[in-house]
Amino acid sequence: MTHILISEVGPRDGLQSIDRVMPLEAKKAWIAAESAAGVSEIEVGSFVPPSLLPQMADTAELVAFARTIPGLSVAVLVPNFQGAESAIAAGARKISIPFSMSETHSIRNVRKDHAAMVEEIRRIAVRVAEEFDPPHFEVGLSTAFGCTIEGHVPEDTVVRLAEAAIAAGAAEVGLSDTTGYADPAQVRRLVRRVKAAVGANKLNSLHLHNTRGLGLANALAGLEEGITTLDSSLGGLGGCPFAPGASGNIVTEDLAFMLAAMGYHTGIDLDKLLRVRDIVIAALPGEPLYGFTPDAGLPLDLARRAA
Amino acid sequence: MTHILISEVGPRDGLQSIDRVMPLEAKKAWIAAESAAGVSEIEVGSFVPPSLLPQMADTAELVAFARTIPGLSVAVLVPNFQGAESAIAAGARKISIPFSMSETHSIRNVRKDHAAMVEEIRRIAVRVAEEFDPPHFEVGLSTAFGCTIEGHVPEDTVVRLAEAAIAAGAAEVGLSDTTGYADPAQVRRLVRRVKAAVGANKLNSLHLHNTRGLGLANALAGLEEGITTLDSSLGGLGGCPFAPGASGNIVTEDLAFMLAAMGYHTGIDLDKLLRVRDIVIAALPGEPLYGFTPDAGLPLDLARRAA
Repeated sequence: MTHILISEVGPRDGLQSIDRVMPLEAKKAWIAAESAAGVSEIEVGSFVPPSLLPQMADTAELVAFARTIPGLSVAVLVPNFQGAESAIAAGARKISIPFSMSETHSIRNVRKDHAAMVEEIRRIAVRVAEEFDPPHFEVGLSTAFGCTIEGHVPEDTVVRLAEAAIAAGAAEVGLSDTTGYADPAQVRRLVRRVKAAVGANKLNSLHLHNTRGLGLANALAGLEEGITTLDSSLGGLGGCPFAPGASGNIVTEDLAFMLAAMGYHTGIDLDKLLRVRDIVIAALPGEPLYGFTPDAGLPLDLARRAA
Repeated sequence: MTHILISEVGPRDGLQSIDRVMPLEAKKAWIAAESAAGVSEIEVGSFVPPSLLPQMADTAELVAFARTIPGLSVAVLVPNFQGAESAIAAGARKISIPFSMSETHSIRNVRKDHAAMVEEIRRIAVRVAEEFDPPHFEVGLSTAFGCTIEGHVPEDTVVRLAEAAIAAGAAEVGLSDTTGYADPAQVRRLVRRVKAAVGANKLNSLHLHNTRGLGLANALAGLEEGITTLDSSLGGLGGCPFAPGASGNIVTEDLAFMLAAMGYHTGIDLDKLLRVRDIVIAALPGEPLYGFTPDAGLPLDLARRAA
């Protein structure tokens, strides 16, 4: 039975995309409950200046809290070297930096071109390696499937920059469909090409959005190409699909159901997972949540299917 | 470039699932506009007693209207021999009968066990063959992926009944996920097994619901096993996913986008297709419509992708 890691990114990608700030205690309750449901990796926040993203101001406290949960891999996002320093100081076990494959997007977003980003990755890799028990350092190749500014992003560019990120010292790269442009054929091609370029064990994860409804089809294409980690967000929180420029992560509940039904092992108790939703609903009343499985319920024969 | 046929079932499966009756003129406008957008097969209604489904009372008039549209394959659903007689009299070019793989479901739904259904299929096949220019006669193997009453539906049963339907004279069988139970691994297995049993060219179509969000992933699995016809409904009309026992067809707009992005040929103009939604919205104000692509819009690089 193949094990697939679902990496919950709701507390980071979800909460940074909405205006309201979820109280620290609610975030802790969410993280604790989802971990208790068997989700073994959670991206708890990002180390960005609170002036830019006040929703993430308590990330250090969340890392400290999450580190007390046995068996939980505590992940954070960082935009730069300074963020990585904070992440290391806080005790994060997995540090991801987004590296936009669209140079225009990179410059607008973090004011760094590709060369400057590779240099930043190198500095972080060196800093991480100085630790006695270094955290896992991953580079997320964002806008890898297309960009809302540049449009088409050439696959050759993604392959070249994936190689550059690994050469600069990243332990791993992941492919991110930041804009919801990916289609299953493209996912297959790009996963194959990047795995071939950097080594099969250095690309294991996909970060997919459900912007045009193709999220789980893209996940399936990735699984069939050897992807073993999928990011998702409880209730698809973050980036409302019904707004212009919508993003919207793939929904943890639907993804976990699909994997269980297909016979993959995720370690997740689906009944418990579906109940975690109540915590988010109570903390963010009126916030739109997505997902079909929570409303339809689990099929009668799920236990048989998953066996 | 592989051609994939999108068979629009909204005017039948969608409209029979909602309480309101769409006026005949609105149905005609919908069918005409969607055909003009390049959708080349539409299931316009079903021949059931109007006392049971008043929403379908105008099916004969719709068949006559749709037959005037050049290049459109005019399909209808029939529950039994009598319905098939009406369909033939009206001039339908494709006649489908649902054959429930769950015998309990079949008995409750049409008061016929499996043996009686095979006999009904045989009578219809004989009747169809009497026509000078016979319509295409297909058997939809409903609840093929699981049943809300029986739960698990054995694959051996589906294979055996698919063979029985073909032996009884059906030109083709299709697999229907009536209950939204299907997962991609199961779709692959069952398509392979049924194709092997009845002949690859006698299973070409899938009818999928998006009940648990897996609809397009299941479609992808089917495509990769040689499926060339996919049923879908504009706006996912029919069977609200947010109600108990929800069904909800896969969304034509999202499916057409996925196929175009992957480089399949469907003959559909996506911009025109997205505008057809306005007709349905105007005719059924307040009715919930689904789909992500209509809200997110098409990606900037679609023309390049599709090429």
